[in-house]
Amino acid sequence: MVRLVEDQQVGPVDPEPADVVKVAVVGYGYWGPNLVRNFFEAPGSTVSAVCDLDQGRLAAVCKRYPTIAPVTEYREALRDPAIDAVAIATPVSTHYRLAKEALEAGKHVWVEKPLTMSYPEAQRLTELAERKKRVLMVDHVFVYTGAVQRIRTSIDGAELGTVLYYDSVRVNLGLLQHDVNVIWDLGVHDFSIVDYLLPQRPVAVSSVGARHINGGSESIAYVTLHFQENLIAHFHLNWLAPVKIRLTTVCGSRRMVVYDDTIPSEKVRIYDRGVTVNGSLEDRTRLLVEYRSGDMYAPKLEQTEALQAAARHFASCIVEGSRPRTDGEAGARIVALAEAAQRSLANGGGLQRVEW
Amino acid sequence: MVRLVEDQQVGPVDPEPADVVKVAVVGYGYWGPNLVRNFFEAPGSTVSAVCDLDQGRLAAVCKRYPTIAPVTEYREALRDPAIDAVAIATPVSTHYRLAKEALEAGKHVWVEKPLTMSYPEAQRLTELAERKKRVLMVDHVFVYTGAVQRIRTSIDGAELGTVLYYDSVRVNLGLLQHDVNVIWDLGVHDFSIVDYLLPQRPVAVSSVGARHINGGSESIAYVTLHFQENLIAHFHLNWLAPVKIRLTTVCGSRRMVVYDDTIPSEKVRIYDRGVTVNGSLEDRTRLLVEYRSGDMYAPKLEQTEALQAAARHFASCIVEGSRPRTDGEAGARIVALAEAAQRSLANGGGLQRVEW
Amino acid sequence: MVRLVEDQQVGPVDPEPADVVKVAVVGYGYWGPNLVRNFFEAPGSTVSAVCDLDQGRLAAVCKRYPTIAPVTEYREALRDPAIDAVAIATPVSTHYRLAKEALEAGKHVWVEKPLTMSYPEAQRLTELAERKKRVLMVDHVFVYTGAVQRIRTSIDGAELGTVLYYDSVRVNLGLLQHDVNVIWDLGVHDFSIVDYLLPQRPVAVSSVGARHINGGSESIAYVTLHFQENLIAHFHLNWLAPVKIRLTTVCGSRRMVVYDDTIPSEKVRIYDRGVTVNGSLEDRTRLLVEYRSGDMYAPKLEQTEALQAAARHFASCIVEGSRPRTDGEAGARIVALAEAAQRSLANGGGLQRVEW
Amino acid sequence: MVRLVEDQQVGPVDPEPADVVKVAVVGYGYWGPNLVRNFFEAPGSTVSAVCDLDQGRLAAVCKRYPTIAPVTEYREALRDPAIDAVAIATPVSTHYRLAKEALEAGKHVWVEKPLTMSYPEAQRLTELAERKKRVLMVDHVFVYTGAVQRIRTSIDGAELGTVLYYDSVRVNLGLLQHDVNVIWDLGVHDFSIVDYLLPQRPVAVSSVGARHINGGSESIAYVTLHFQENLIAHFHLNWLAPVKIRLTTVCGSRRMVVYDDTIPSEKVRIYDRGVTVNGSLEDRTRLLVEYRSGDMYAPKLEQTEALQAAARHFASCIVEGSRPRTDGEAGARIVALAEAAQRSLANGGGLQRVEW
Repeated sequence: MVRLVEDQQVGPVDPEPADVVKVAVVGYGYWGPNLVRNFFEAPGSTVSAVCDLDQGRLAAVCKRYPTIAPVTEYREALRDPAIDAVAIATPVSTHYRLAKEALEAGKHVWVEKPLTMSYPEAQRLTELAERKKRVLMVDHVFVYTGAVQRIRTSIDGAELGTVLYYDSVRVNLGLLQHDVNVIWDLGVHDFSIVDYLLPQRPVAVSSVGARHINGGSESIAYVTLHFQENLIAHFHLNWLAPVKIRLTTVCGSRRMVVYDDTIPSEKVRIYDRGVTVNGSLEDRTRLLVEYRSGDMYAPKLEQTEALQAAARHFASCIVEGSRPRTDGEAGARIVALAEAAQRSLANGGGLQRVEW
Repeated sequence: MVRLVEDQQVGPVDPEPADVVKVAVVGYGYWGPNLVRNFFEAPGSTVSAVCDLDQGRLAAVCKRYPTIAPVTEYREALRDPAIDAVAIATPVSTHYRLAKEALEAGKHVWVEKPLTMSYPEAQRLTELAERKKRVLMVDHVFVYTGAVQRIRTSIDGAELGTVLYYDSVRVNLGLLQHDVNVIWDLGVHDFSIVDYLLPQRPVAVSSVGARHINGGSESIAYVTLHFQENLIAHFHLNWLAPVKIRLTTVCGSRRMVVYDDTIPSEKVRIYDRGVTVNGSLEDRTRLLVEYRSGDMYAPKLEQTEALQAAARHFASCIVEGSRPRTDGEAGARIVALAEAAQRSLANGGGLQRVEW
Repeated sequence: MVRLVEDQQVGPVDPEPADVVKVAVVGYGYWGPNLVRNFFEAPGSTVSAVCDLDQGRLAAVCKRYPTIAPVTEYREALRDPAIDAVAIATPVSTHYRLAKEALEAGKHVWVEKPLTMSYPEAQRLTELAERKKRVLMVDHVFVYTGAVQRIRTSIDGAELGTVLYYDSVRVNLGLLQHDVNVIWDLGVHDFSIVDYLLPQRPVAVSSVGARHINGGSESIAYVTLHFQENLIAHFHLNWLAPVKIRLTTVCGSRRMVVYDDTIPSEKVRIYDRGVTVNGSLEDRTRLLVEYRSGDMYAPKLEQTEALQAAARHFASCIVEGSRPRTDGEAGARIVALAEAAQRSLANGGGLQRVEW
Repeated sequence: MVRLVEDQQVGPVDPEPADVVKVAVVGYGYWGPNLVRNFFEAPGSTVSAVCDLDQGRLAAVCKRYPTIAPVTEYREALRDPAIDAVAIATPVSTHYRLAKEALEAGKHVWVEKPLTMSYPEAQRLTELAERKKRVLMVDHVFVYTGAVQRIRTSIDGAELGTVLYYDSVRVNLGLLQHDVNVIWDLGVHDFSIVDYLLPQRPVAVSSVGARHINGGSESIAYVTLHFQENLIAHFHLNWLAPVKIRLTTVCGSRRMVVYDDTIPSEKVRIYDRGVTVNGSLEDRTRLLVEYRSGDMYAPKLEQTEALQAAARHFASCIVEGSRPRTDGEAGARIVALAEAAQRSLANGGGLQRVEW
């Protein structure tokens, strides 16, 4: 037999210290394995249990992580006092019920995006978390990227000047979903980024789209958020594109940012470009429009994997009792935008006021 | 003195043969010099006169092309029987009047895009050309590129299958115009390409946009053309973008085309990608959506400069008495789309039926 | 306590079937974790033990894979009859000794590239494996990529015609190594690809390079392999480049292949381009050289992760008693090339015959 | 007849002022038309005559520029006192004779690269220009690009630190030449850039290459310039590549520059990347090599077309009696490098000292 190194050194893993958050991951389908890996590796958390109805998936997680308890009955996980938090990675239609039960059981809750299928549900979860003094965090993972953090710095610090428009293209071939359309899938990412980046809130939403599969939902949609003072944010969302594109432009009066998430480095590029207008506003024919074209600059970005940063943020909010960057209210706003876009789709693309 | 080679060989340029079309170019501003160069170099045409109100511009053309007559009075050019055709490269608001006078004077007419500022004007020009039996051609130059020709072949020959959507991004920093907004400038290119490529005609248009310069027109607009049977074509048009993009996707049920006009070669790429749906339409939960991801193929394209191809096409239509690919009717349809988009902009983005 | 699902279903992992190859991975530094993951996930193999002198690393592997036995004494692993094969991922200078001991102990052996530090050592291992009837495979991982497989098909099937030259750029910032220079690190990848792709064997090697760190080895080198009949293969190898490039060109008389390993899809592009020469060879001034520029084509590639494909290949060679694609002889040839390049470096770049 | 605008305004072109340099362009083949256009458009020069043996080419230039005198007898141009300067764009083998005659006739001389076929010839021209007090300038056109100017500023101003290596790839499909190989064609561009950028002079050259057309010269070559103190500059030169690449890396101890001449903007990118070495030089195993990876920065570049900048520089050197940036001495050094590379090719790639 192979000689094991002495047990006290590498043997049974040390019991986790008291301030390590013990997480039960619920749903081990497409995204669940990423949650397990990240909560497992984050210094402030560990995964105690995985809950799924599918025995094959539970067997897979056990083979890979024998210390994790496989669970089929969600409520048993909720009853286990050793579990501090629940991370919900199940189909969207189940989010509300599962999160509500977990909060009522006194657990902290992490929910995959979107938070719920409706704004009132999202509000009720937010209020429940408030009442129960528990952390409710939505996994709007792009908010935790070095790229989005850096763009926020540019906007806050006036590097960009006034934001003139926001444009994003998020398209690829794939993963058509049955229960939601492309707005509820891809669009929610963009809504959460805009919600985080811009100080203003949109007042209305319009959207056009098309269905390409009989009986399916929209696989392509163009959504516009309308803000006060002429600002618009536009999104091209598409599950049926030949080439993957993740390209966001934030145009400011001083500088313009291009964020390309498909390239490995220099994802954020800041262009010293713009327009300067001279001349009298009364006399349009004498308007002198000058283009400024200066340097381009790609700042070094924080490299931590976004999901890892989010997992750490969740654990630290629990330990410190603080509010997550993407809390229930943010999650609810994003749901409100998706609902308004959905209504606009159904109404031929007309403007829909956001209800909040 | 330098000895000239013998006159009969290279000396005074031979008088043009009878079937060479003699063109007067009207307007020697931004685009006029390109017209002069191309009509000058095309085997079937030459430039006899350039007409402009600005003496400095006329001096410039004379220094460069001493055989071209400089003209300040447009009507004198129209009265000159040696001039066969007039090419109009003046501000859009003057197109209708100048083209009308030229057709009435019996000249063939080339007009820069867009043909006119209104659909009725465009129709009247079309009828006038018909009555006068003269060629009326609009310079929708992209229709004459090897790229657009190749995509048309793909659509006609069923390589793509049914077109599912059309998406185009035409953005750059620059050249804000005073008399028209970005739809009438950049959008008209895309409308003409779609008009040429697709057999269907759009039934309605919607559009959102924003103005960024006091007293100016929209520098950014998103326009959607709505066709029968769930087909949409969407355009991002933008004069205020940090990076130049010219990227068109035509998604078909069999294959998908990406046309990137900013790269020097392999501008058109045809992807053998798509979605196959199996299963009963009644039972959405059992829909089996499969992604197909096959080869990519970039066909060799015809390399002739598009404006040169268009200039030759114009001359050959005159000589053969045939109808140009981008005739007055096509020009009128494009104007109708721009008008509808403009109305939608003014109406908060609601659907506007195309009036034709 | 959380209720475990019933033991008979997901509980103690089934003992591996008899024909699953049990691997001990030796060295859990930079590459070892990739070997563990891949032998663990490959259907034909599993990892029974990991051997490393560093307790921290062993603790890490145990936390992640509690079923793997941590080992500090290499020879104990060799004595364990339950272990079928050893995968060596230790510093290059130790490869020969560790592989030799493993073969002598009757184990099948996987060695990270390069096989050894010298050609005679590599030959001795090859002979020993032959004598012991054990599989000896070198992890020349690029040979197992879909890209290299597809290029090989192009060459074998005469799609490319006669190979005229081979050019590769493999540069990035990083991972300067102490015990070997950039030829023994990056260059070995390219040598193994060329060795696999081309039917010919190089007859000589030349190389120039430079050292940039005091006391360090060459961080940049340019190596040329010289074949019969005017064919050359050239490599730019560089640890000190600002941007990562992995770009290989194989120019054939009929078509040319470009293989860009840094892009996510269309990694291999086949260009129908070339030169056709007409005219008499005696009269150079009348040589008519014509460029052919046709379509470009990017075939769909096999997507399996290369290391996974290699791990499966190793297991299947053991089970079937067959010879790996990158066997000891291939590994020895690559070492011979690296040695010759090293000699050329030391001799001012002069040609060095390959000794085999 | 079309009414001409009044003669005194745009009519007969004003006689050129006295300090406008009158140029005779010799050779109207591939490059000559570019020279004519640029000397014609540059404010300090004009083209009085074009000299070519081919009547068709002379007819072409006369059609395009009716004010230019066509000339077949070179010596007549040299005898014409109204001609100040001669621009030689004929095959390389004729450069020496034509430039010598022009200098002896008292003309200023512009010569396309390379200056001559041999170093002694280049030296003799340099001495002759000196003696005759005439400007001798070689059209090393890349030296006049905004990109190369900006990189020179980086090197001079210590932004890059010590240059560690220089690497360039200049490959494309095309234009195999009969009288020279790829070193004398493409390589000469790179030699002139390095000659301009680096303060040091190379001490030796090595080169390998291959011929691919019967009776032709090398269509691919790899050339290395060897400097003092471990600095090397390496060039991949290739007429038989499927894709055009123009990519230069200048790696400094503080920053690294990448210059990509095939992209329309941000051609020069400066990376704040590198390696920092800590630890004792005696103990290699304890060397701590750290990678620095900071921001990237793409400075705005001067946009003037390089040939236009060179044409202006030539005229201004003539008027001011100053020495051109790419004078006869620079031209001679570049010829010396090409000769040394050629000798190395013929000698199996061995080092050749540069003879100067």
